[in-house]
Parts: sequence; C-alpha cells; structure tokens
Amino acid sequence: MDKLSVLRDIAIVIIFAKFFGLLARRLKAPQVVGEIIAGLILGPSLLKWVQTNDFLTGIAEIGVILLMFSAGLETSLPQLKKTGVKATLIACAGVFIPLVCGTILYMCFYGFDKVGSDQFFRALFIGTILTATSVSITVQVLKELGKVSDEVGTTILSAAIIDDVIGILVLTIVLSFKDPSSKLGDVILRTIGFFVLAIILGALFYKLMKWLDNKYPHTQRIPIIGLALALGLSFVAEKYFGIADITGAYVAGIILSSLDDSKYIDRKMDVNSYMIFGPVFFVSIGLQTDIKSLDMSILLFSVCFVIVGLLSKVIGCGFMGRLCGYKGKDTLIIGVGMMTRGEVALIVSQKGLEVGMLDSKYFTSVILLIICSSILTPILLKMLYSKDSDNKKDSNAIENDPIKNSIKKA
Amino acid sequence: MDKLSVLRDIAIVIIFAKFFGLLARRLKAPQVVGEIIAGLILGPSLLKWVQTNDFLTGIAEIGVILLMFSAGLETSLPQLKKTGVKATLIACAGVFIPLVCGTILYMCFYGFDKVGSDQFFRALFIGTILTATSVSITVQVLKELGKVSDEVGTTILSAAIIDDVIGILVLTIVLSFKDPSSKLGDVILRTIGFFVLAIILGALFYKLMKWLDNKYPHTQRIPIIGLALALGLSFVAEKYFGIADITGAYVAGIILSSLDDSKYIDRKMDVNSYMIFGPVFFVSIGLQTDIKSLDMSILLFSVCFVIVGLLSKVIGCGFMGRLCGYKGKDTLIIGVGMMTRGEVALIVSQKGLEVGMLDSKYFTSVILLIICSSILTPILLKMLYSKDSDNKKDSNAIENDPIKNSIKKA
Repeated sequence: MDKLSVLRDIAIVIIFAKFFGLLARRLKAPQVVGEIIAGLILGPSLLKWVQTNDFLTGIAEIGVILLMFSAGLETSLPQLKKTGVKATLIACAGVFIPLVCGTILYMCFYGFDKVGSDQFFRALFIGTILTATSVSITVQVLKELGKVSDEVGTTILSAAIIDDVIGILVLTIVLSFKDPSSKLGDVILRTIGFFVLAIILGALFYKLMKWLDNKYPHTQRIPIIGLALALGLSFVAEKYFGIADITGAYVAGIILSSLDDSKYIDRKMDVNSYMIFGPVFFVSIGLQTDIKSLDMSILLFSVCFVIVGLLSKVIGCGFMGRLCGYKGKDTLIIGVGMMTRGEVALIVSQKGLEVGMLDSKYFTSVILLIICSSILTPILLKMLYSKDSDNKKDSNAIENDPIKNSIKKA
Repeated sequence: MDKLSVLRDIAIVIIFAKFFGLLARRLKAPQVVGEIIAGLILGPSLLKWVQTNDFLTGIAEIGVILLMFSAGLETSLPQLKKTGVKATLIACAGVFIPLVCGTILYMCFYGFDKVGSDQFFRALFIGTILTATSVSITVQVLKELGKVSDEVGTTILSAAIIDDVIGILVLTIVLSFKDPSSKLGDVILRTIGFFVLAIILGALFYKLMKWLDNKYPHTQRIPIIGLALALGLSFVAEKYFGIADITGAYVAGIILSSLDDSKYIDRKMDVNSYMIFGPVFFVSIGLQTDIKSLDMSILLFSVCFVIVGLLSKVIGCGFMGRLCGYKGKDTLIIGVGMMTRGEVALIVSQKGLEVGMLDSKYFTSVILLIICSSILTPILLKMLYSKDSDNKKDSNAIENDPIKNSIKKA
C-alpha cells in the first residue's frame, strides 16, 4: 500500500461524502444515502478514482465500531425501565414479523430449502436486515409536530431502543451460524457466555469509569478509555465468542450510557465519526457495489424487499399496538413511526457480506429501503397527524428528550 | 491484514499511550515521551504485543498530517507582521546555528565527506532535526511566571513561529536531495513552484472557506473541507513537487489560520488527533525502535547531540538577541526559551527515516533531547526569572495569547 495514496484517498472520500451527503439532505433524503452514492460515483461503477483496499477497509471497520458504540451510548436505561411492557411487546413484534416476512420473501424468490442449510441462512439474513428500526427521522417529524413526548411518541422511542437491543440479539445468533458446524446449543451458550462476561466486565468498568469521571470530568482520558473498551469488547466478542464485533461495541456503549459524561464521550466519538471514519464506511459500501452488475431480477427483488420491509413493520408494530390498547389512528402512527431504516441496516448488511451470508448486490435493496422509508415516513406521519384536531405543541418537553442528539447526525 | 487485529491493536495502543502519557506528565516530562515509551514497551524491545504494519503506518501518517495542519492553524499571521524584524533575525540564527552545529557533530563522529555525498546529507539531516523549536513548555512556564506577554515573552513566541516556517523550508530543501540526481537549481525551482501553487490555491480556498464560514459557521463541512485541503495539499506536494507531505499540511494550516473559524477547525482536528491518530503516530516511533540494538557508540552520540542541540539554540538565539538590543539576563532567557524541542523534531525525524536519510537508532538521540530540554527549560527559566526583582504578574494578558491552545496538548 502506497503511503501517499492513503492521503489522496481519504481527501477524496471525505470531500465527496460531505458534498453528496449535503445534496441528499437538501433533497430530503438521509445523508448516508448521499455518502453511499458518493462511493458509487467514485468506485468501479463510474469514475474509478478510489478502490477498496485494506487500509480503507480497516478505517471503515473502526467507523462501524464508532457508530455502534454511539448507538449504545445513546440508549437511556431509565427510559427503558419506565415505559416497560407495552414498548417491549411492540418491539418484539417489530422484530419478529419483519424477520419472518423477509425470510419468506427470499425463499419465494430463490426457493425453499431445509432449515439449517446455507440457503436457509441466507434467507434468514435477509429477514435479519429488516429488523433494525432507525427512528431518527421519526423523532425529527414528531418534534416538528410537537408530538415527541406524548404517549404515542414516547412509546415509539422506547420501542425503537428495545428493537435495537433485540435486533442485535437476533443478529448475534444468526451470525453465529456462519460456521456450518455450529449447533444451536453452542450458539446460545456462547451468546450467554459473552453477555455474562459483558455484565461482569461492564460492572467493573462502569465503577472504574464512574470513579475517573468524578475525579477528572471532561478530560481526554474518559473518551479514550471508553473507545478502548468498545474496541476491546468488539475484539473479544468476535475472537473468543464468535459473536459479531458490532455487538461488542454496542454493549460497550450501553455499559457506559449511564455515566454522567456519556454525552461527553458521545460527542467526542461523533467528531471522530463524522470527519473520517463514518464517511469512509458509507463510501466503502458504494465502492463495493458495481451498478453494472445489477439485473432485472435483483431490481424486482428490491422492490418486493422494500414493500415487505415497510409493511411488515407497520403491521407488526401496529397490530401489537392495538393489542396493547392503542386505538384507531394511533396504531398506524406507531407502525409508520417504526418503519424507517437507516445506518444500522447497512451495518448489519456489511457484516453479512463479510461472513458470506449476503451478496453485495443486495445492498441495492437495503439502500432503496432506506431511501423509501425516509421519504415516506415524514409524509405519512404528517398526513396522519393533520387529521388530528388536538394540535397543541409540547415543545417544552423537547429538552428532556434523550434521543435529541441522534437527530443532529441524521 | 486481519480485520480483528486492527481493533485489538488500536485498543491497546490508545490505552497504553494515554497511561504512559499521563505518567510522563506526572513526572514533569512531555506526554509525547510517555507515548513513545508506551511504544517501546509494546514493541519488539519488550512485550512484542503490537507490531508495525501497513495499517498502523497509514494511521500514523494521517496523524502527522493532523499535527502539522494544527501547527499551521495556530500560526498567527498578524502577530508575525507586528513583531517583525527582531523575531525574524533571532529565528534565523536559531535555525542556522543548530543546523551547522548538528551537521558538524555528525561529521565529527562518522567522518567528513564531500558536499553532495550521501554521508553529507545524512549529516545535514541531523542538523535539520535540531532546527525545530517547540515552545509549548516555554509558554507554560512564562504564563506561570506572568511573563508571557512582556517584550521578551512576545519575542520568544514570535521567533518560535518564524523558526517553524524557516525550519520547514530548510527541511523541504534538504529532503528534496533524497534523490541523488537532484540539483540545487531543480530543488529551488520545485520549492518555488510549490509555494506559488500554494499561494494561488490558498487564495482561492481562503475565499471559498471565508464565504462558507460566513454562511454556515460552526458546521461540520468547515473542518471537513479544511482537512481535505490539508490531505490534498500534502499529496500534491510530495507527488508532483517532490516536497515533504508535512510541508503541504503545514501550509494548508497557515492558509486557513486567518479564518474566523480557524480555532473551531483546530479543535475538531485536536479531537481526532488525541483520540487515535496522534497516539498511534507517537507509539509507532517506539514500535520502530529496538532498544537492544543500541550500543555505546550511539549513546555517546546521543549525549553529544543533546548538548550540541541545547547549546546551539541558546548561543544562536541569545547572541542574535544581544545584537538586536536585548541585554544581560534577557538574552539568556530568549536562548533558553527557544531551546525546547517537541513533536516537530519527531515528525522531521520520521520523514528522514522514511526517505532513508536517517537510521532509526537516532530516534533515541531525539527522544533524549526532547526529555532533557523539557526538563531543563522550566528549571532554568525559573532560575533566571527568580533573580528578577520585578515580579508583577500580567495574568490579564493571558486571554489574548494565540498560543494558549497549544499548551492544552502538552
């Protein structure tokens, strides 16, 4: 690897990512979509200016760890405890129904195969991609409408957080089957083993960090130790437990999410993330995709994937919402609010590509789902609320919103 | 390169770097020395936990660009214009005398060779390493003593900045001779060519950034475009002009140093720098050094190198200070204030290693010089000032100090 080309690649990647990210935002699409398009333009599909190489892959890998660590840090454990049962049930339905529907969709296209076969796990992985909700766009719309902290709004936010946790569990288990000799018992044992270790290590680290944070608040050592924990736990998870590294990063984030300085850590991660590591990750996804290899069959699959992805969330969450006592329009609002997909779906897909459970051509489907859900959700939510007569704003409550920070990134 | 080992390496490097950096600071030595020692401990000399590899080298390279870009950003052009002639003369003497003394020292040890030979350029490079002043420790001491903005203090600060600029010019020219077929005329032509390009590009970019900065102050795009400029100019400098990439990064920093948001850019670079890129660079230096390969000859050379390094700055700057009208103790204060070395000496050495003008064993000498100068300067400055009866503090003036930010990092 030429040292100089590193400088050139990074310069080109960050400037293109920012430009197309901003362009996407101006067109009301998520910034990450713009960054992926930047990758498509720079890569084999078009300009051929930048090629994936070991260095960019390493940077992208750290970028994913930073993103998942951030997601973990932004989890509010007290809010989870408070909203409790209803949100958990909605989240479970919001994971389970898309998982099943996605799996069946793949089987309809490429044939049913017996449980445990390679083909079965590929199908299951398509389902797994559909589990990850990303509510930052929903939060933004609810805020504009002044609905972010009413009962429905709080339920959506909490369900989305729990959805993340369950989604990561599902991913952990599904990925563990990448080794064909894996047995379900082994996988569950390893998963439990990792979480037991994480709880013990987490308790120790939390105490250490709490002590450090009291003694030296807002010092460089706090985010540095946090980042080292995230990287270390990612390494240990994958190396010694056969569990995806991103699970380790996410768990590290949850461990530190109750620290006084958790927001401080998150801000520092954010700077690292948006300057170099994040853009390189999203651009890499574009670089790995060669548009010319797309054919009608994958386009048809993508359209079905988007429809199934959107409807399965709306139906799963909405139906469970109704069972939990929400009525009429509110059940639809919950369903639509939960249907947006974002970064996490891409991170999950990237993991699948890495372990050979997903072909890179399916990135097209995932990107399309992100674009469609991000455009449809605001429109549908505004339509649903516009019929609402009771339109008083609860803007005062916004300050207490734990997910506020995530909007900035969107 | 194994993807997982990337996570592990970075986790170990940043945690060790921070720990030993803090330990060094507690022992009144510079943090960077602690970080290098962390590398020595982790590397082939002792634990063998981390090995240099392409990925770490790439990260370290970006780290150097960030550090030099920061150094450029912290340059205050208005202050340079104001202090003018005296500071420039002192800086020139502070570059020239150490350059000559260092060259002669190497020749005394390893033989005189004709001008233009490989051996001559190795000697010249040892002199070049001695040119780089790093006044952050001096600034810290002057602040404690309340002397940072009196006439002598201002002269030291300005001379140090000009010293950086001249030092980079000297380095640029010396490094250009790495190709044995280089002729002095070519080198000067290329150097002039680069600076003409930098001035034209700089003017355009400065206008663009000023417009962006007025329209979107404190947005992510400002530091991202700045970083892309630094990386891009580094690439262009080395690729098309045969000039060290760090010169490009430094020039990019100077171009943007007059922006309203230059401090904002610098803060964002700082976060990136201290979390991952900076520690990896300094630890890499330790990783490249195998203590076991050190023999008496290099230790003897190191001791002489330190003595020559310290005295040549004190004599050069002090003598020129006297010629400029400073009297008695003040000339010594100027000399001692200018004699500290830091990051830049290491960055210069690393460049020399890269192009084959320096053997890695001389890192020992440079590290020793940094340690000795950092410990001696505060002691000597306090002694020199303690004889001073006029001890009133000018603490109010500290807020206006442009170099204030650099202390935080020390």
